[in-house]
Amino acid sequence: MHIDQIDTPAVLIDLDKVEANLARAQSYADANGLPLRPHVKTHKLPQMALRQLALGAIGITCQKIGEAEAMADGGLKDIFLPYNIMGADKLDRLAALHKRVTLSVTADSAETIAGYAARFAKAAPLKVLVECDTGSGRCGVQTADEAVKLAQQITDAPGLIFGGLMTYPPKGEIAKADAWLKEAKAALDLAGLPPPIISSGGTPDLQRAAEGSVTTEYRPGTYIYSDRMQVAWGHGTLDDCALTVKATVVSRPTPDRAVLDTGSKALAADPVPAPLRGHGHIVEYPDALVHSLSEEHAVVDLSACDTRPDIGDTLRVIPNHACVVSNLYDRVYLIRGDQVEREAEVTSRGKLR
Amino acid sequence: MHIDQIDTPAVLIDLDKVEANLARAQSYADANGLPLRPHVKTHKLPQMALRQLALGAIGITCQKIGEAEAMADGGLKDIFLPYNIMGADKLDRLAALHKRVTLSVTADSAETIAGYAARFAKAAPLKVLVECDTGSGRCGVQTADEAVKLAQQITDAPGLIFGGLMTYPPKGEIAKADAWLKEAKAALDLAGLPPPIISSGGTPDLQRAAEGSVTTEYRPGTYIYSDRMQVAWGHGTLDDCALTVKATVVSRPTPDRAVLDTGSKALAADPVPAPLRGHGHIVEYPDALVHSLSEEHAVVDLSACDTRPDIGDTLRVIPNHACVVSNLYDRVYLIRGDQVEREAEVTSRGKLR
Repeated sequence: MHIDQIDTPAVLIDLDKVEANLARAQSYADANGLPLRPHVKTHKLPQMALRQLALGAIGITCQKIGEAEAMADGGLKDIFLPYNIMGADKLDRLAALHKRVTLSVTADSAETIAGYAARFAKAAPLKVLVECDTGSGRCGVQTADEAVKLAQQITDAPGLIFGGLMTYPPKGEIAKADAWLKEAKAALDLAGLPPPIISSGGTPDLQRAAEGSVTTEYRPGTYIYSDRMQVAWGHGTLDDCALTVKATVVSRPTPDRAVLDTGSKALAADPVPAPLRGHGHIVEYPDALVHSLSEEHAVVDLSACDTRPDIGDTLRVIPNHACVVSNLYDRVYLIRGDQVEREAEVTSRGKLR
Repeated sequence: MHIDQIDTPAVLIDLDKVEANLARAQSYADANGLPLRPHVKTHKLPQMALRQLALGAIGITCQKIGEAEAMADGGLKDIFLPYNIMGADKLDRLAALHKRVTLSVTADSAETIAGYAARFAKAAPLKVLVECDTGSGRCGVQTADEAVKLAQQITDAPGLIFGGLMTYPPKGEIAKADAWLKEAKAALDLAGLPPPIISSGGTPDLQRAAEGSVTTEYRPGTYIYSDRMQVAWGHGTLDDCALTVKATVVSRPTPDRAVLDTGSKALAADPVPAPLRGHGHIVEYPDALVHSLSEEHAVVDLSACDTRPDIGDTLRVIPNHACVVSNLYDRVYLIRGDQVEREAEVTSRGKLR
């Protein structure tokens, strides 16, 4: 099928761009001896995860158990959940998943570890990494001492294994995160609890990831598709963006205004960092500004455009944030050039738990 | 089931608040002789639409055909699509839907009307309203003359019936929209094309809707659940908000910081208008600020809170924008007080086309 035959809105994934993005990252990883464990949040598709493994990734990363269950159903065998998992329902599901795949998780508190410790037994122990806040201000222990304390608690639990350290580092501050992790590693070594894994991540710093001197594996997510946000942060160019949203011009109320059928339900409302502006880049009209979204409408300012689209024309929009777009669609189209290779169900979409 | 037994993240819909919100709006509509045709985008649930009808609504509004198809499956019989519908796939689906329910649509261009005219026949004509841009700067004709021209084109097409005028008016500017519509109505009357319906909408101005002197029906959406955005715009209070997202505190990295398991995948990233701030209102900790979201984490600033939650505690968050939250969940919980009355599948979720 030609992509012209696809009704809108629709997500199109350019497989040649995907391959180029994956190859570039894996080459860097191989050249620097830094294994990749890609985060599937961007694509939410088992076949993409399997392709990442085929190229050399050592396993995958999922944020929620539901995503991991869908990936296990799709044939994935080694899954890291860098999340504090708690509550009886989730721990039951974690235990069931642990029987199906090689699983590791994280914790940043004694409470989370106590939950794991009560649920897992020595016969089939669970690997737990300690999450460290190296500057991004989200989850994670605040000091090396806390990391040692939690590592000891994990080690003391018969059903748990201390897996090492995990961080979601602050963007552009590899040295800062590395200093934090080096100090924690030294403290753990001194305590007789050397961390087997030190896991870092993030696409914006992927091509500099090996500057993290103690990092043993890296979890990039968005690199597979890229998006305007990554480009704004200096990762690649718009030409690398593999995910586009096909849209139709449904209205041309004034000479300077077009309205597309891709509102926030189709493009997501995430803002883009400066210097970029607006809610997407229109490939065919690069000077157009997608200046506002409501749920079902994107209002486009054409005042800077020499040529302008007509009512009924279709366009392709590079979104600000590819990952959240994947979460809005039940199915996506995998394309090569202008041909649809196949449709794929986004099996890890909407997995909130 | 008690709501304490619901795992997180989860959407909880308080049916008593829903009833109060619907009754308040319907009372106003009845007292002012202004029929309601609620927009289902907020709830995306047929049973809620049926309840709106039972209380007096004259039909429903959907934005996309897919939403309307799901509503027709759920027993709804009178559906207005205030959208320019174009392309062979969508016109085929529109024709099929037209056989099942009483349908009306809009157009703001000759091209859109030509599409309808080619697809519908005199034996079963399609009612088409002309969309007017009365100041919100989205779709719609710009002048009364254009409205007359399109009304004539509709009237001249054997398979179409001129239904009247539709607008999505600028917030807080009822008089401005009314002046526009009055002028258009006068021009249409003069042309021998009196508009049978003049449809306006929007929850923020719902309680003043009858100030629109020529409005014959009104399409409120968010009023059924309300949200922080509506409260910021002056519609009701936080206590009216019927949709909350149940969340778990998964991390307490510092005394002033909590992290919830409800990121942008669970709360959506839509900003809230000033004077409100942040990405949600935590019912149990009203002084907490949900200051940033990533996909799976909400970072909360507790510095203004006297009491603070512990790891594992659950909370309820009123989101900025209820409609986009409904679109993120396959199922929601309908509750009365602290008891779950039933789970409901969000059948119009993710209907992008």
